[in-house]
Amino acid sequence: MDVCAGIDIGGTNTAFGLVDAAGNVHFEGRLETATWAAVEDYVDALAGEVRAAVATGGVTLRGIGVGAPNANERDGTIAHAPNLPWKGAIPLAAMIAERFAGCPVRVANDANAAAVGELVYGGARGLRDFVMVTLGTGVGGGFVANGELVRGHDGLAGELGHVVVDWDGRPCGCGRRGCLETYASVPGFVETARALLAAGEEPSVLRDIEPLTGRDVTAAARAGDAIALATFERTGRVLGRALANVVALTGPERIFVFGGLAQAGELLLEPTQRHLDRNVLDVLAHETRLELSQLLDRNAGILGAAALAWRRLAAAD
Amino acid sequence: MDVCAGIDIGGTNTAFGLVDAAGNVHFEGRLETATWAAVEDYVDALAGEVRAAVATGGVTLRGIGVGAPNANERDGTIAHAPNLPWKGAIPLAAMIAERFAGCPVRVANDANAAAVGELVYGGARGLRDFVMVTLGTGVGGGFVANGELVRGHDGLAGELGHVVVDWDGRPCGCGRRGCLETYASVPGFVETARALLAAGEEPSVLRDIEPLTGRDVTAAARAGDAIALATFERTGRVLGRALANVVALTGPERIFVFGGLAQAGELLLEPTQRHLDRNVLDVLAHETRLELSQLLDRNAGILGAAALAWRRLAAAD
Repeated sequence: MDVCAGIDIGGTNTAFGLVDAAGNVHFEGRLETATWAAVEDYVDALAGEVRAAVATGGVTLRGIGVGAPNANERDGTIAHAPNLPWKGAIPLAAMIAERFAGCPVRVANDANAAAVGELVYGGARGLRDFVMVTLGTGVGGGFVANGELVRGHDGLAGELGHVVVDWDGRPCGCGRRGCLETYASVPGFVETARALLAAGEEPSVLRDIEPLTGRDVTAAARAGDAIALATFERTGRVLGRALANVVALTGPERIFVFGGLAQAGELLLEPTQRHLDRNVLDVLAHETRLELSQLLDRNAGILGAAALAWRRLAAAD
Repeated sequence: MDVCAGIDIGGTNTAFGLVDAAGNVHFEGRLETATWAAVEDYVDALAGEVRAAVATGGVTLRGIGVGAPNANERDGTIAHAPNLPWKGAIPLAAMIAERFAGCPVRVANDANAAAVGELVYGGARGLRDFVMVTLGTGVGGGFVANGELVRGHDGLAGELGHVVVDWDGRPCGCGRRGCLETYASVPGFVETARALLAAGEEPSVLRDIEPLTGRDVTAAARAGDAIALATFERTGRVLGRALANVVALTGPERIFVFGGLAQAGELLLEPTQRHLDRNVLDVLAHETRLELSQLLDRNAGILGAAALAWRRLAAAD
């Protein structure tokens, strides 16, 4: 059986799996990321694990896809990734290709890999124009236009999290102010809850929780807590407005939402869709529907990375 | 000789020309738009003129491209165009195709036609990822990603003029507030000059001019008038910031500027590029250069429309 390896590199762990063309995951493994001081040793260990899994499974490895933070999809490097232990520009695709002669390797940032995963295995099958929004520790975006991932001239397109929604807004880790990420990431969402708590005396179960997490706010909202519900309303307004601008620019048929905050489901989707609809240019009669990613409860990181490799093989056929 | 007809429909006049593959315009004609109460009669007259030009020139008509306001590139209709005399959705591509059997017809909005014109005949030749910005009576955008025009699911993508830059900003004709068009169109630019004049007592040659035009402000800026220069600075800040967000999303290699305000040249480009560079996400090290359209002093409307048809033929080969 033909498989592609999907490798999902995170700051703490690396998850990998062998995935067939239909999206079945035949093997899953895990490797620590942070413990390898030298990236050469890390890639050696990773290659060894993948090779062992291929041998054990008796499958044929056709390609390798990698999702990694700050990946450059033009040259296959990762650079300036604040959560990874290795500094400088790392030629990741080339290093992996060296260890798997003849096997095509494709690298993408997390959000773009998620977009391709949705396209190949999820709710975007058959769509030609859609957007993937990832709401986690950060905010990411993946744009598909005319059936192709928008990579940008430099391979770094899709930085939805660093679209500025308020030039005098919250300070962002990137050094600027008011990036969407400072409002619509899980930490930004929690900060909104804290700001609402600090702004008044309204009773809320959230007042007694320290440290406050996104899950706490979601649970409180499900129980009807007014501050928690207002947090979703505020977050939905910022996100819905930002997405109204995205709709004006790229005209997607659907917007998929993924990541920790997407776990809140309708609590997040309803206000976001409402503010999107209210703020979208109505003369255009755009009707862009927000939807949860269909990979939300599946192994999205591995599937997205493997989908990159399968798409590459399909294009080469 | 093979030619494509390029038809540029404006509210007052329609310009058309016969253009060869190299971008030479072999015939140019003009027809009033506003005087035709019935769109059928208008299309009959237009078809008659194009047919006569083809016969006179002894050329072979291979395709027809049309640039029109509010054009839908998926279904070839124009609808809700406030400056055209015909109401409702007009199946323009189908009506033209009926009159030129066997000739492919392609319709696009003005800014998207300008983008394809730049790609085929101008400074974007060979580029795969770029943005066209048109700054005229309105503001338009044309996005090319992976070498293809981003049309959007509904054929209405690229509405850069209706990206909201300030949700509490100036009222826009679209019914919302703070659209980029209210600041970076020629009327928006003039409104900024008026606001600066009203805000203080500073001497300015502009105080004596009524009605004030974009050309007046540009001429005053060239002569060193402080209010006129401040108008370019403000406009460049709003536009540069908006383009910084565009760069984060689509990662263009270059941004071309076209339209009445582009005639100001460096007076506009310098502050816009400066604010773009200052506000772009620096960790990405995007280096997106602003540049004047190379079709600025040529017959851009006709060339852009003809380029649509030539691209269509190239894709079909």
